Amino acid sequence: VSQLSLGEPSESGPSEAVTLKLVVAYDGTDFRGFAAQPDQRTVAGEIAPVLERVLGHDVQLSCAGRTDSGVHAWGQVVSCAVGASTDPAVLQRAINAHLAPEVVVRSAELVDGEFDARRSAQWRTYRYTILRCDVPDPFRARYVWWVPEALDLPRMRMASDPFLGAHDFSSFCRKRPGASTTTRRVLASEWRDEGDGVLVYEIRATAFCWQMVRSIVGTLADVGIGKIRPGDILAILRARDRTAAGRLAPPNGLCLWDVGYELGTVNR
Amino acid sequence: VSQLSLGEPSESGPSEAVTLKLVVAYDGTDFRGFAAQPDQRTVAGEIAPVLERVLGHDVQLSCAGRTDSGVHAWGQVVSCAVGASTDPAVLQRAINAHLAPEVVVRSAELVDGEFDARRSAQWRTYRYTILRCDVPDPFRARYVWWVPEALDLPRMRMASDPFLGAHDFSSFCRKRPGASTTTRRVLASEWRDEGDGVLVYEIRATAFCWQMVRSIVGTLADVGIGKIRPGDILAILRARDRTAAGRLAPPNGLCLWDVGYELGTVNR
Repeated sequence: VSQLSLGEPSESGPSEAVTLKLVVAYDGTDFRGFAAQPDQRTVAGEIAPVLERVLGHDVQLSCAGRTDSGVHAWGQVVSCAVGASTDPAVLQRAINAHLAPEVVVRSAELVDGEFDARRSAQWRTYRYTILRCDVPDPFRARYVWWVPEALDLPRMRMASDPFLGAHDFSSFCRKRPGASTTTRRVLASEWRDEGDGVLVYEIRATAFCWQMVRSIVGTLADVGIGKIRPGDILAILRARDRTAAGRLAPPNGLCLWDVGYELGTVNR
Repeated sequence: VSQLSLGEPSESGPSEAVTLKLVVAYDGTDFRGFAAQPDQRTVAGEIAPVLERVLGHDVQLSCAGRTDSGVHAWGQVVSCAVGASTDPAVLQRAINAHLAPEVVVRSAELVDGEFDARRSAQWRTYRYTILRCDVPDPFRARYVWWVPEALDLPRMRMASDPFLGAHDFSSFCRKRPGASTTTRRVLASEWRDEGDGVLVYEIRATAFCWQMVRSIVGTLADVGIGKIRPGDILAILRARDRTAAGRLAPPNGLCLWDVGYELGTVNR
């Protein structure tokens, strides 16, 4: 995965190559998403140059979840190939010194060279936060979707059950050019009432397709205000038609919360 | 207080003049403080034009606390003279429609014409939040002072007691041109440990002088890291010399929390 610069001295041959695994949190408000894009401010576009300066060679970052513009992360996992003598604590400090508090490396470790943040992931958990109150709260506004209407939480809970299991999520996904299947397996789908109008939807799946969580949450909010019935969800899933679903929830309420890997196989 | 535009029809003579009282919350990060200043983005500079458009006359805003650049408010109180037939709910909706979620009017009511948000206030409460942890949290960064060093909270609590009562706060204030006395009466001064490294300092006083809370918190943090002893606070107060105090804490941890008025006299 690593592209070593020509003429750059390297102590690590392919047999010695290991992987740097970072757990990264970021406020996505002022980024055009995670993945590097030309002429755009992205999270990968800020992390990679810092790593490259310290390591002395180019890096190719892999990430567990390609978060969109304005979407946050608490437990994004990022990986890249590095030499076996790399000190992960030095890289963590370097990134935090340059990018904190907007982007923060919460932990850094060396893992098996086979590890890849995207390919090795077994599941991803996203959290989506709604603030249901009459006037918005300026201190939460960046991290919640403010909904002034009354929401029927029991009905939203009913409507979140049919997403469990393996489904073709065509009705809840924006097509990405070149993407193949839109079938995904959902492992958890539930609402938590945290009080004071804060409603958190947590969804865990083996993988997600583009805008899937925001489409599901927007549709569940439409259930909450009575525009869609809980019993309609299965029909919307079966329609495999994006226009059958409800609203697209705004990005600022969404956070990539946690990513799961098989235990015991990746840590050195 | 109101400057009625010439030629503007007004149903309210001076005898009918009442006061509009707003309770306002704002994220101060991207504002140059509350008070209007030419060519600067300020909270008053955003609120006043919305009020003037709806009311059809100029307004002169009074506020309970002139928060500085980057300082937040949950319970800022703002007042201005309006006609007796004004509907406060209409003004609240108009401001929130234009300025929320960065600036939010939490409540709006008509009160006695004698009421003035600044002059009528009996006390102000500020909260200052410190986040004591090894790596900063991107979702709290705008609203806390991140302190990576260990802090000795029992000593910080000891050091916060001498501020209670009436003192000349010259050692903890930046001189404002033309300001007279720097004697203030502190009614409450205490630390709360909210867990997960969150330490909240709450101070209530009849009034505050410029940068007083940030000077006190910076000095208490210096006590927390062992640079200043709790027993030194009284001597620093008595020195009446700004260079005797500790650091100036950054503005982003500070929030104007609440303002007190005599009950029963202001509400119509």
